[in-house]
Amino acid sequence: MKNTILVVGSVALDSVQTIHGRTTRDLGGSAVHFSLSASQFTPVRMVGVVGEDFPGRFRRLLKRRNICLEGLQVLPGKTFHWKGKYDRDFKNATTIATHLNVFEHFKPRLNDVHTECGVLFLANIDPDLQWDVLRQMEKPRLVACDTMNYWITLKKSSLVRLLSKVNLLFVNEEEARQLTKEYNLIKAAKLLTKLGPRAIVIKRGDSGAMLFYDGKVLAVPAQPIEKVVDPTGAGDTFAGGFMGYLAAAPDWRNFSVLRRAMSYGTVMSSFSVEDFSVKRVSGVSKPEIRGRYENYVSALAIK
Amino acid sequence: MKNTILVVGSVALDSVQTIHGRTTRDLGGSAVHFSLSASQFTPVRMVGVVGEDFPGRFRRLLKRRNICLEGLQVLPGKTFHWKGKYDRDFKNATTIATHLNVFEHFKPRLNDVHTECGVLFLANIDPDLQWDVLRQMEKPRLVACDTMNYWITLKKSSLVRLLSKVNLLFVNEEEARQLTKEYNLIKAAKLLTKLGPRAIVIKRGDSGAMLFYDGKVLAVPAQPIEKVVDPTGAGDTFAGGFMGYLAAAPDWRNFSVLRRAMSYGTVMSSFSVEDFSVKRVSGVSKPEIRGRYENYVSALAIK
Repeated sequence: MKNTILVVGSVALDSVQTIHGRTTRDLGGSAVHFSLSASQFTPVRMVGVVGEDFPGRFRRLLKRRNICLEGLQVLPGKTFHWKGKYDRDFKNATTIATHLNVFEHFKPRLNDVHTECGVLFLANIDPDLQWDVLRQMEKPRLVACDTMNYWITLKKSSLVRLLSKVNLLFVNEEEARQLTKEYNLIKAAKLLTKLGPRAIVIKRGDSGAMLFYDGKVLAVPAQPIEKVVDPTGAGDTFAGGFMGYLAAAPDWRNFSVLRRAMSYGTVMSSFSVEDFSVKRVSGVSKPEIRGRYENYVSALAIK
Repeated sequence: MKNTILVVGSVALDSVQTIHGRTTRDLGGSAVHFSLSASQFTPVRMVGVVGEDFPGRFRRLLKRRNICLEGLQVLPGKTFHWKGKYDRDFKNATTIATHLNVFEHFKPRLNDVHTECGVLFLANIDPDLQWDVLRQMEKPRLVACDTMNYWITLKKSSLVRLLSKVNLLFVNEEEARQLTKEYNLIKAAKLLTKLGPRAIVIKRGDSGAMLFYDGKVLAVPAQPIEKVVDPTGAGDTFAGGFMGYLAAAPDWRNFSVLRRAMSYGTVMSSFSVEDFSVKRVSGVSKPEIRGRYENYVSALAIK
């Protein structure tokens, strides 16, 4: 169980429109994108909630990737549904509709196998729920979390309480700035570290990502992609690759290990944007991942 | 003369305001930023124009860095003066005033020593002037150019004519998109290559830079900087480090050499933003450059 990740987050049906087409009620949600990515590296158990309309084929898809769904509650009603569209630049999603449905009443319930997982990833949900889950855990050796602008605005004190108990924080640029009121990302990361997390990962979309750990800073580029189809879930897929690699490594408290995790996160998220929903990541093979990873790191390795 | 760079571009007095302060009538201009950076690696000869008000101390500063100023014309009138300010995000400069002054009548004149330089850098000026300079050259082994949105809008056909004779093009993201009407940078670079240049460098500010050469793509991150004081000239400083390294290398047509040039460009531009005007780059030592380069490349080299 030492290497098993427990992830708590949203499981959703997404309807997304981009310049390359659209998809309707397709598989999405932070816990889903994270799990499909992380399960390439390490066992994953998912805690979430769906409605009675959640298609069996999505359930089977997740199970085929060895993601444990014991913690996936089914409640009367409909699954969380997000409808959005992206402009040509893929920078900001415009939300057309958010139907929380059963997700509105989500109360994560952990069983004994869940609480014994060695690694916990708290995907972007209400920080009070994230806290609630963390308190139920036995003694995880690594706790990471994500969040979003909504919670920073509405529940900052809950989030700050959570951060005091978290080892690793994933945020995007805007969230880092909003949380710290500091524009410069190095300064922002230093302030975030003071709130608790020993490692900070700032996700920057097609500008790459930055890692802050033990006073060190690492910036890595995004993998250039010639046809970006749908960026939904790219951040969670990044976190999945990062955390999956980290959970499988003997000791995460090591800059070299974290550096490789940054590359695996980058590579996994680069697959995710190549097709709608989870199409690319759910079907990607280990040799494909390894191949893109080798290309990515060898391009950067200057002799 | 094989390794000597001839640069043609603007020499200016800049008045810049940022969140960290302001500077008045300080040394600037594309040819200046480029030369101070490139001269760390290879001999540089500058062709430009100033007015009678151009301070002797700026002339001495450039000469101290072994930049040949034989091609710096002095015309009756005042030096090109740009006045601008940056917001907290340093993304876009707001121009408060542009006084072209003597620069309006700039007609680059090359002497025999200029025309025999092995490497030519055509900094951002009217593409008809860039063309005029290129035609005066004997047989440069490497020709690179920069441009800006203004010329793409006003003189696209002149620019396209120039590009057919250029080996290497520096553009920023917006310029790449404007020139090709293609949003995706890989696709845009492929289209730019079809216009002539064998290598394309897309400068992306604090998102790093991308190199396209022989069907290969390399994205590199920016060097994270904790206190960005003034980004003016960072792009020209990048080009200076890149071209300086390339000019000093035995053969530029080599992906490994171009890759190292990307890192030297990144490192030089990271110094440039740390202070106003050319303060940081004009005073930087070779060991400082070497040290930051080693840190930058070793952080990215994953074993």
